[in-house]
Amino acid sequence: MGLGNYINQSMSRWMEGDGPENTVVISSRVRLARNLADIPFPGAATAKQLEDVRQRVKAWWEKHKLAPLGEVRFLSMGELSAARRLALVDKHLISPALAHQQYGAVLLNQDESVSIMVNEEDHLRIQALLPGLQLDKAWELANQADDALAAGCEFAWNHQRGYLTTCPTNVGTGMRASVMLHLPGLAWSNQLAQVLGTAGKVGVVARGLYGEGSEAQGNVYQISNQITLGPSETEVYRGLDRVASEIIRHELDARQTLLQQQPQALEDQVWRAYGLLANARIISSDEALELLSALRLGIDLGLIEGVDPGILNVLLVFSRPGYLQQIFDRDLDADERDISRAQLIREIINKDNQGGVK
Amino acid sequence: MGLGNYINQSMSRWMEGDGPENTVVISSRVRLARNLADIPFPGAATAKQLEDVRQRVKAWWEKHKLAPLGEVRFLSMGELSAARRLALVDKHLISPALAHQQYGAVLLNQDESVSIMVNEEDHLRIQALLPGLQLDKAWELANQADDALAAGCEFAWNHQRGYLTTCPTNVGTGMRASVMLHLPGLAWSNQLAQVLGTAGKVGVVARGLYGEGSEAQGNVYQISNQITLGPSETEVYRGLDRVASEIIRHELDARQTLLQQQPQALEDQVWRAYGLLANARIISSDEALELLSALRLGIDLGLIEGVDPGILNVLLVFSRPGYLQQIFDRDLDADERDISRAQLIREIINKDNQGGVK
Repeated sequence: MGLGNYINQSMSRWMEGDGPENTVVISSRVRLARNLADIPFPGAATAKQLEDVRQRVKAWWEKHKLAPLGEVRFLSMGELSAARRLALVDKHLISPALAHQQYGAVLLNQDESVSIMVNEEDHLRIQALLPGLQLDKAWELANQADDALAAGCEFAWNHQRGYLTTCPTNVGTGMRASVMLHLPGLAWSNQLAQVLGTAGKVGVVARGLYGEGSEAQGNVYQISNQITLGPSETEVYRGLDRVASEIIRHELDARQTLLQQQPQALEDQVWRAYGLLANARIISSDEALELLSALRLGIDLGLIEGVDPGILNVLLVFSRPGYLQQIFDRDLDADERDISRAQLIREIINKDNQGGVK
Repeated sequence: MGLGNYINQSMSRWMEGDGPENTVVISSRVRLARNLADIPFPGAATAKQLEDVRQRVKAWWEKHKLAPLGEVRFLSMGELSAARRLALVDKHLISPALAHQQYGAVLLNQDESVSIMVNEEDHLRIQALLPGLQLDKAWELANQADDALAAGCEFAWNHQRGYLTTCPTNVGTGMRASVMLHLPGLAWSNQLAQVLGTAGKVGVVARGLYGEGSEAQGNVYQISNQITLGPSETEVYRGLDRVASEIIRHELDARQTLLQQQPQALEDQVWRAYGLLANARIISSDEALELLSALRLGIDLGLIEGVDPGILNVLLVFSRPGYLQQIFDRDLDADERDISRAQLIREIINKDNQGGVK
């Protein structure tokens, strides 16, 4: 099935897993909400008006290609298969809501570090997504995309309030910054509630892997700023960066403590995770993420060598139901997904490890 | 630590795992109980009398070397370390009772297929132990040893009752035949009670791995004849052979049914067992035997290749507390044993599988 090639061609920039503090931080994201001044917000717009938004953005893209962002593709939801749309959701490039919006579209640059959703909750949602802790770079990228679009569209803006958005919590900068963190050390030592609770007191909220209301799987948490009205964009992402750095420090401390206090139990747990991932023939999404979290911790602590640490980032996406169907190129029921997921994980985990029992 | 060499030098014949029906039958054993005519049975004998038995057997051995059995060693319990005695117990060559008998001794031939305990429950307990289902060969071997000893000792024998023994259930032939069976198919399909229950109705009793009162670990069961008075030796072992063959048939049927009805779940289970055994850093005896049972089933069904099927037989012995202390050459507490056991299993399992993550 040429899985290796397929995977290499399907990587978004953030999935490569490099960047500062990448033993804890999976990705950094900056998102800007924008609306066209002369068309009602999506929730109040007619079908014709939504189509008008899509056409205007598309026309601007055809003319200017959003040159500062390099080569950019324009994908209309109506022209994509359900599996293809689901795959974009799995890669965190579009929201589940956009996948079901028939007038929706997304602009994507070459390495998928920038995605611009059209007709989601707002007319435009610009997102910059990078691996590791680099909110500054993500902000630069998002800002570039914003400038490129602003050259062609007049945005809904108010001198007192700033950018106007569908949801009042986004009014002002229209910006939300977020950081995806892998926190097995805090989870295993039962310090998560305390550390994330402290972050809440300074206006930073923590959620599971798939946004609001989702549970944390694989010990992966997203933290983001809550305040958009008042502080500047720079103040916002720098504030979040400080909180993230503090959580990283606690996480690294917790890992060292585990390593010192129960080295054998820790080693046992991470190697068992490796053994199961490399050999299971049926694996649920929940179990896979739990084991991948342990495996990644083992790699980060130097207990396991020879496995690419990027395996966690890659499988956070590729072991999702939508992506599995893309990779295996057919509809899969729940049982088939658990079998395909196990197969995919084995192939990826054994890629770097030739030999052994097959 | 030269583990490979150590293991090769420590193998008893039965542990090699070959022989007829070896996908189900681990070993076949024939045991004969004998007592010297002119000395009270061990339970009633004085220390001096027990020592007399030991000296008389030793003298006969020194003179004749029990030539038909090849090179034979004479080991007195009093001269062996506790670890060494425990290791003989783990290899099923002596009983736990003999290990604590200060006037006890054991005669062992070169490949350890014959062991003769001195001053166990009876003055002499001749045992022949072979891999696979070959009760006929085991009987021949035991009979040879019996003849060799009988040439030098007068046995307690009575025209009406046959050989006299300490326990009335052994009177007559003094023979007990037993077969050690690996029954994962019956266990996984919940047919054990039924199949072993039927065997009970024809005078065959089933026990766990370590004899009377022990629980079955690793789905390994011992079946043996109950009647010693009446039928001839040949009738006894042939009867047991018939029952064993019947159980084997049921076991093989159960495995095929599992393979047909739930191939993926079965494959998953055996590969997970492999993954854990090849990678765990801490493993209890119970978990190890459970996983080894699954691994062996996977090998026997052709689901896993490249792992020596003998791993089950070998680890039934080598992962025992006594043997672990022999191999690692020091006292080990329970935690250390679980770590050493995991290390040993990894070394043995990876012996045949070069490469992979270390």
